Amino acid sequence: MTSAIPAVDTAGVRALLERGRTLATPVLRAAVARLAAPMDAVAAYHFGWTDAQGRPVSGDGGKAVRPALALLSAEAAGAAAEVGVPGAVAVELVHNFSLLHDDLMDGDEQRRHRDTVWKAYDPAQAILVGDALFALANEVLLELGTVEAGRATRRLTTATRKLIDGQAQDISYEHRERVTVEECLEMEGNKTGALLACACSIGAVLGGADDRTADTLEAYGYHLGLAFQAVDDLLGIWGDPEATGKQTWSDLRQRKKSLPVVAALAAGGPASERLAAMLAADAKLTEAQAADFDEEEFATRAALIEEAGGREWTSQEARRQHATALESLDRVDMPAEVRAQLVALADFVVVRKS
Amino acid sequence: MTSAIPAVDTAGVRALLERGRTLATPVLRAAVARLAAPMDAVAAYHFGWTDAQGRPVSGDGGKAVRPALALLSAEAAGAAAEVGVPGAVAVELVHNFSLLHDDLMDGDEQRRHRDTVWKAYDPAQAILVGDALFALANEVLLELGTVEAGRATRRLTTATRKLIDGQAQDISYEHRERVTVEECLEMEGNKTGALLACACSIGAVLGGADDRTADTLEAYGYHLGLAFQAVDDLLGIWGDPEATGKQTWSDLRQRKKSLPVVAALAAGGPASERLAAMLAADAKLTEAQAADFDEEEFATRAALIEEAGGREWTSQEARRQHATALESLDRVDMPAEVRAQLVALADFVVVRKS
Repeated sequence: MTSAIPAVDTAGVRALLERGRTLATPVLRAAVARLAAPMDAVAAYHFGWTDAQGRPVSGDGGKAVRPALALLSAEAAGAAAEVGVPGAVAVELVHNFSLLHDDLMDGDEQRRHRDTVWKAYDPAQAILVGDALFALANEVLLELGTVEAGRATRRLTTATRKLIDGQAQDISYEHRERVTVEECLEMEGNKTGALLACACSIGAVLGGADDRTADTLEAYGYHLGLAFQAVDDLLGIWGDPEATGKQTWSDLRQRKKSLPVVAALAAGGPASERLAAMLAADAKLTEAQAADFDEEEFATRAALIEEAGGREWTSQEARRQHATALESLDRVDMPAEVRAQLVALADFVVVRKS
Repeated sequence: MTSAIPAVDTAGVRALLERGRTLATPVLRAAVARLAAPMDAVAAYHFGWTDAQGRPVSGDGGKAVRPALALLSAEAAGAAAEVGVPGAVAVELVHNFSLLHDDLMDGDEQRRHRDTVWKAYDPAQAILVGDALFALANEVLLELGTVEAGRATRRLTTATRKLIDGQAQDISYEHRERVTVEECLEMEGNKTGALLACACSIGAVLGGADDRTADTLEAYGYHLGLAFQAVDDLLGIWGDPEATGKQTWSDLRQRKKSLPVVAALAAGGPASERLAAMLAADAKLTEAQAADFDEEEFATRAALIEEAGGREWTSQEARRQHATALESLDRVDMPAEVRAQLVALADFVVVRKS
C-alpha cells in the first residue's frame, strides 16, 4: 500500500497531533469540569485523565487526529489555529459521547486497555455522561455567541445525526447474514467519515470561511475518514497486537462485518464461497464461543478473506479514498504550508500501523 | 389549594393546548420522519402515533403544555404564534429524548399505559432514538439559519444540561437515606423547571425578543415548572387513579423521595419520626417487595406524610410557585390577551387533577 504514498513526515505529523492536544486538552478539561458531580468524575475517567478511584493518571488519550484537523481547518481559512479550538473541543466531545453510548449498546467491556464506563461504573452513568458531553459540545460552540458559531453548530449537528444513523446501521447489520460493500461503506461514512469531515470544516467555519470552502474541506475529511476506517479494518484483522494494543484477529473475534470480510464475500469464487459457508456456521455460535476459537481457526478465516481478495480490495480502497481526499484539497485556496500539513496527515492516516 | 386560584377557564385552556398540538404535531411528525429506519418507527411508537407493530393508533400524546407555552411565548414578543412552532417542536424533542433515556436508566417499564421503548424494543434502541431526538431538536432550530435560532438553541442547550444534571441528582438521591427539601427543589427545578422555562422563552427569542424579556419569561416558566411538579408530587400519592391513569400511591410504590415525603421528614415531631423509621425499614426491602405492600400499608404511610405536614407544605409550595410565576409576567410588556392566557395556563397547571 505504501507504494502510492510518499514517505510520511512522521516528525511533522507528531508535532501537529501534539499541537492539537496541547491547545485543545486544557479547554476540553475545563468544559468537562463544568459537569455536575458525579458526571465530571466519570467523564474524567472515560477521557483517561483519572482511574476509577479518581486518581490522576497519564493515560493514552488516543491519536487526537480530530483536534489536529480542526486547528488546521482554521488555518486553511486564513485564521489563527486558536480560532479552531472550540471546534476541536466540540468535535472531541461528540466523538466521546458516541463512544460512551456505543460501548454500552455494543456491550464492549474494554476501550484503550481499560474497562468502559458502563462496566467500571454502571449503564446509567454511561447514558447520562454521554448525554452531558453531547450537550456540552453544543454549549462550547454556542456560548461564543457569533453567527459563525451557529453555522459550526449546525454542521456539527448534521455530523452527529449521521453518526447516530451509522450506529443504527451497524446494529441492524449485526442481525443480517449478508451486507453489501455499498452498505458497509455507507455505514462507515456515517460512523467515521461524517465527524472527521466536520473536524476538517469546523475551524474554517469559525474562522469565517464560506459554505463552499467548508463543504470542500468536509469532502477532504469525509474521504480521509473512509481511508482511516479502511486501514482500521485492515488492522482489525492483520494488525500487530504489539502496535494496535488489541488482541490478534480482533475484528474476527467480534465477528465484525468489516470491509475486508464484506468485500471477500462479494468477490465470488471458491475462497469466497468457503468463507461464506464458514462464517454462516460461525454465526450459529454464541459470541463467547466464536471469540474462543484458537489462533489456527482465526488464521484460516483471515487466509480465506485474503485469498478471496478482501485484503487487497480494502488496501486499494484506502488508497482510492486517500487520493480523493487529496483531490478535494486542490479545490480550496489555502496557504501552501497548511495544505502540506493536511497532506501529511492524510498520508499518516493511511500508512499507520496502530 | 383552589382557594387562592380563581376559577380556571377550562375551555380556554383546552383551546390553547389544542392549538399547540395542531400547529406543532405535523412539524414534529415531519422531523421524526427524517430519522433513518428503524429509528423513525421506534420514535413513532414512543410518541404514541403507532403501536409496536407500526400500525397507526390515536394515542394519548400527553397534555402538550410545552408546545402551547412556546406558541404563547412568540405572541408575548409580539410575533405570530407560528413563529414559535420550531421552538415548540425542539422542546418536545428534547423532552422526549429525556423520557427515552430516563425510562431506561430508571428501569421504568410503563409510560402512558404502554411499554416503554427499552421494554418494547430493546435498550440500544432507547439510547439510539433518544440521541437522535436530541440531535434533531438542534437541527430543527439551526436549519432556520437565523441569529435568533442560534440564541434559541443556546437556551435550549442550557436547559438540556440542567435536565441532565437533574437526572444525575435524581439517581444519586435514590442511593441516599436523607434528601433535604432544598436538594429536592433543586433537582425538580432542573428536571422540570428548566425545560418548561425554555418553552416559555423560546418562541419569544425566535420572535426577536431581547435577553431581558426572554429571561423574565423563563422565570415565569421555571416557577410554573416547580408548581407543576409540586402538583405532580401530590397526585403521585393522593391522585385519583381514574384521573391520573397511574396506580394508587404510585410514587410510594416507587419509593420516590418526592416533595411531600421530603417535607414530612424535615418537619420533625412524632409523625415525622414514625415515618422516618418506617421508610428506613422499607429501604431495606427490594423494590419488588416494597411495590407489593397492600393498600393498607401504603395508606398508613400516606397518612403519616399528611400528619407530619408534607401534604399541606407541598400544596402551599405549589401556590407559592404559582404566585411567583405570575409576578414574573408583570415584568414583561405583552399584549393583555396573551398575558391572560399565560395566567390561565398557570392556573390550570395548579388545579389539575391529572
